[in-house]
Amino acid sequence: MKNIIIASTSTLSSEGYLDYLLPALQLHFQNCKTILFIPFARPGGISHKEYTELVGMAFAKINKKVTGIDEFDDATEAIKNATGIFTGGGNTFVLVSQLYKYNLMDILSQAIKKGTPYLGTSAGSNICGLTMQTTNDMPIVYPSSFQTLGVVPFNLNPHYLDPDLSSKHMGETRETRIKEFHAYNSAPVLGLREGSWLDVKGDKIILKGDLTARLFRQNQNPEELESGMDLSFIN
Amino acid sequence: MKNIIIASTSTLSSEGYLDYLLPALQLHFQNCKTILFIPFARPGGISHKEYTELVGMAFAKINKKVTGIDEFDDATEAIKNATGIFTGGGNTFVLVSQLYKYNLMDILSQAIKKGTPYLGTSAGSNICGLTMQTTNDMPIVYPSSFQTLGVVPFNLNPHYLDPDLSSKHMGETRETRIKEFHAYNSAPVLGLREGSWLDVKGDKIILKGDLTARLFRQNQNPEELESGMDLSFIN
Repeated sequence: MKNIIIASTSTLSSEGYLDYLLPALQLHFQNCKTILFIPFARPGGISHKEYTELVGMAFAKINKKVTGIDEFDDATEAIKNATGIFTGGGNTFVLVSQLYKYNLMDILSQAIKKGTPYLGTSAGSNICGLTMQTTNDMPIVYPSSFQTLGVVPFNLNPHYLDPDLSSKHMGETRETRIKEFHAYNSAPVLGLREGSWLDVKGDKIILKGDLTARLFRQNQNPEELESGMDLSFIN
Repeated sequence: MKNIIIASTSTLSSEGYLDYLLPALQLHFQNCKTILFIPFARPGGISHKEYTELVGMAFAKINKKVTGIDEFDDATEAIKNATGIFTGGGNTFVLVSQLYKYNLMDILSQAIKKGTPYLGTSAGSNICGLTMQTTNDMPIVYPSSFQTLGVVPFNLNPHYLDPDLSSKHMGETRETRIKEFHAYNSAPVLGLREGSWLDVKGDKIILKGDLTARLFRQNQNPEELESGMDLSFIN
């Protein structure tokens, strides 16, 4: 049975890393002593080691150990044997490139579909969708494919931002960008605002947090979905 | 002799399309009656025809005709024979995909290097750099390469946005994204704020508009460059 948390962000403004999620994570990883961490997205270009240490400090608050996947000789075995997996945020292009480089995309998808508890934040959430094509990140490296884990049957847009009506900036709004995505692609896109997450248990996909999420479908008007709803109808 | 205008944006807030640039464009395209327009970036997913009409209306104000590249049977010949070329904004991934699909990237680069007057705005400016890897756009299609025209020896970030210090949004700032680019790439990146453009004449690259531009180099602190400066030292 799938057991996944897909969070818009790791961190809320003026809070510590993962703080707002810790109560949910205590339950989510209850049968797991050590979490396998995938640090490939390297936020701000920090090293895998620095990133793993940061994550280790957050999980220490709920008495979990964290080991970086780069510390294993065999990353495939590490994923297969993991009792809990976390992929952190950063740059989605870098993350996806690395997962393909080490042939881990399929292995990770299979492990999650078999029920290994998984947490994704930001880039780590993006890859839970069908493709990474609704990421907000810069294409700083060229991945061999944009296909991702497909553990939910739609795409994600983490850190979803509503248009700032007072802004004079002429760059595209997030909504315009997603509309452009739908000029070429039919997959639904779920805009997850910061503080929202999806709690996937088997076939149920429950929206958590205080805010609504915004659903974009090709050739349809966007729709606001209430917290607490089961979103498994989206496909 | 190269003769290029590389503009951050086509449009300033509360102005008409290209309005702020028209005096410069009158001079830039003085020896050109008809401008070849490349509408591939399709902002908001509009059709090539709609986009070309919009551009035609703007250039009519300075008595120029506009023809879309899709109206020619042979796009390569159209570029070779053009007396002026404009590539408009929209989605850079779509633009670059189309240029490669029709084998036009090299032809366009050669025409610009030989001196055909060129105007780029937003995505059309992005492609003037070495690669499109500092675009702000969503990867809604998968291009066969991120390499671009290379008519200037650095990368561009159009619509450059300073960090909003009052924001509680935790998505990466533009500066953070460019720093992440420099974890993997050494090309300098010029952040062009809206209202700024580069006027390239032969070996000179003059910064125009009222604002400074922000230069990012690998392992160095960013630098503000004054309007009027020759930026040909950047490489």
